[in-house]
Amino acid sequence: MKKLSKLIMTLMTIFLLAGCGNLGNSSLSSHSQNGKKVTTTTQASKSGQYSTLLQNGHYQVSAISGLSADSNSSNNHNLQAFEAGLLAVSQKEFSPDKYYFQEGQMISAPLAQKWLNRKSNTNPLGLNPVDNGSKDADKRNPIYLQQLLEQDFYTQNDKEYNLAGMTIGLSLNAVDYYTKERYGATFETKISDSQRQQMGQEMANTIIQRLRKNKNLRDIPIVVGLYRQNINDSLVGGSFFSYGVSHKFGDKINDWKAIKEQSQVLPVVNNENPINSNDANDFSNFKNHIENYFPNLSGVTAQVHYQDGSLSGIAITITTQFYGVAQIRSFTQFVQESANRYLPQQPALEIRIQTVQDMQALITKDYNSKQFTSHVLVSY
Amino acid sequence: MKKLSKLIMTLMTIFLLAGCGNLGNSSLSSHSQNGKKVTTTTQASKSGQYSTLLQNGHYQVSAISGLSADSNSSNNHNLQAFEAGLLAVSQKEFSPDKYYFQEGQMISAPLAQKWLNRKSNTNPLGLNPVDNGSKDADKRNPIYLQQLLEQDFYTQNDKEYNLAGMTIGLSLNAVDYYTKERYGATFETKISDSQRQQMGQEMANTIIQRLRKNKNLRDIPIVVGLYRQNINDSLVGGSFFSYGVSHKFGDKINDWKAIKEQSQVLPVVNNENPINSNDANDFSNFKNHIENYFPNLSGVTAQVHYQDGSLSGIAITITTQFYGVAQIRSFTQFVQESANRYLPQQPALEIRIQTVQDMQALITKDYNSKQFTSHVLVSY
Repeated sequence: MKKLSKLIMTLMTIFLLAGCGNLGNSSLSSHSQNGKKVTTTTQASKSGQYSTLLQNGHYQVSAISGLSADSNSSNNHNLQAFEAGLLAVSQKEFSPDKYYFQEGQMISAPLAQKWLNRKSNTNPLGLNPVDNGSKDADKRNPIYLQQLLEQDFYTQNDKEYNLAGMTIGLSLNAVDYYTKERYGATFETKISDSQRQQMGQEMANTIIQRLRKNKNLRDIPIVVGLYRQNINDSLVGGSFFSYGVSHKFGDKINDWKAIKEQSQVLPVVNNENPINSNDANDFSNFKNHIENYFPNLSGVTAQVHYQDGSLSGIAITITTQFYGVAQIRSFTQFVQESANRYLPQQPALEIRIQTVQDMQALITKDYNSKQFTSHVLVSY
Repeated sequence: MKKLSKLIMTLMTIFLLAGCGNLGNSSLSSHSQNGKKVTTTTQASKSGQYSTLLQNGHYQVSAISGLSADSNSSNNHNLQAFEAGLLAVSQKEFSPDKYYFQEGQMISAPLAQKWLNRKSNTNPLGLNPVDNGSKDADKRNPIYLQQLLEQDFYTQNDKEYNLAGMTIGLSLNAVDYYTKERYGATFETKISDSQRQQMGQEMANTIIQRLRKNKNLRDIPIVVGLYRQNINDSLVGGSFFSYGVSHKFGDKINDWKAIKEQSQVLPVVNNENPINSNDANDFSNFKNHIENYFPNLSGVTAQVHYQDGSLSGIAITITTQFYGVAQIRSFTQFVQESANRYLPQQPALEIRIQTVQDMQALITKDYNSKQFTSHVLVSY
């Protein structure tokens, strides 16, 4: 009788699943059965990207993402660059060919908030220094650690997914913004590179020792990446400057490796020096060329990104004031030709063509590829 | 002496051009020389798209695009579908392999405005009927012709570009909106398919006879496409329903061919019937699948476009409420897999993944192709 009801259940499940369409046996189509949690994955659509674990078909958001040390506002560039940069750090140790990705699930939100706050009698776990009472920019203890991010990496054995690695990102301030009184003016405490590095490394070791107390985290490698959070009015995000690995059962990081990463907006403003003047000239020629041919453009700007001193990516935004279908198609062709002629060949390229309201077209190219892809958005 | 100064001029020109960057001998790099107008072209980046003529490097906008019969507002879907549809009509006669495109330059804006207005003592050229004074929806003469568009096609002989064909688009109302008094309520006069067809054909012949009086337009084929402008609150544009060719020296169109084109928004609303219920089911399965896995989506809608009864294009918009880099990457992978599984294989596909403010990712596929392209927008 028990067997029969099980058979009926199974048949009903198959029937229900079949109703969804042409399912096949892909991992995507697994559903929760009999209340047991079912882990599936998405397939990476590009090489070098992680497949992601889904629990009962759902993407798992990390509880701690977005938590912040205090009311310091951070711009959106910082948030994106922090998360995307940490994924790049993770890839140095956890290859997307072998590891599956899941947003961090091990550090709870209340715990992370305690870590992010200042150390005090009521918050002994705080990683930021105690408040010494000073309001003087150079005498007060600044908030060093602004944000915390965890990324988990799984391997698959016999259809089971097991936690096999973890990466922790520490977002450390370049400038700590503070007020002397509530709703008062904002003051700044600048944090030097060496201070940031030293504090980051100390915090990393503390975090690793705390994580190792969890028995699930004892025998996995834990990577920590240190990120310099850019100043609030920057038009690009910050960048990772250092990372290290604590191998399984280890209680600290012995060997810190430098990460040479930089981002900048072109054209440069405020007499800033371009990171690479050849690249800045190339962009300037590209910009002049398209502005000459299509005079009614509102703006042509670029974000450039350097890794180990060489240009790895350019993201260009072109704001137009025209709306005709043929004109946008023609302009897109023209921009692609101009990009191919004037811009450096190597970096990944993204060109958004848009009005102030809507994107109109997108041109992309992968790193180290000469193959452009362009698409003019349609409306039927 | 004259020869010498010419040589110096030439050398200076070369020198100036060389200063612009690595130019090569592409058509794009031609500049205006000695005050003579220089015609260049953009290169079509995809097969089936026109190369566009540029005059002194500048794209030429048609003076009449955007002109309208009266204050009848038209939605943006109509404008885009009218222009894009007319390009498709043009391709039936003027192959992008042979012809270069330029927005219409032969009909001036004042002339087009006269044609679009009602016929009257002061406007004998008006193509819309005289105002018979009635305000009754069924007795008044409605405005049939709402907009007019001209597209010019050139061929190249001995480095000269010559006008070799023209297409005229007539946007004809499905409903004429009118008020009985200024700022008053809006009333509607519905126009039947047969009325629209008959009026469009008559107007087309009148226009051809007028155009043939220009000696530059006597010996070229003139194509006229008739477009049904969709009602104002529609979420898709209208569609072309008929076209014909007046061959060189001809003074009318003898042979009108039907165009079977339809657009619709999915999921359907107001108990509307889907154009094709299989396609509507496929989309519904796709939508359910991704909503099930990522519950916090604000909306999944599609525009479907049919040509000759078969699905030629789908444009899907997915509005999300999440912002994390890893989550958007993973979701984009997931959507691409789901599209590949649930949606019809044949049509051109565009999927925009966006928040209410910004596009986050774009997935595309060409007509009759299985090759998906996806790109998650970056920020450095």
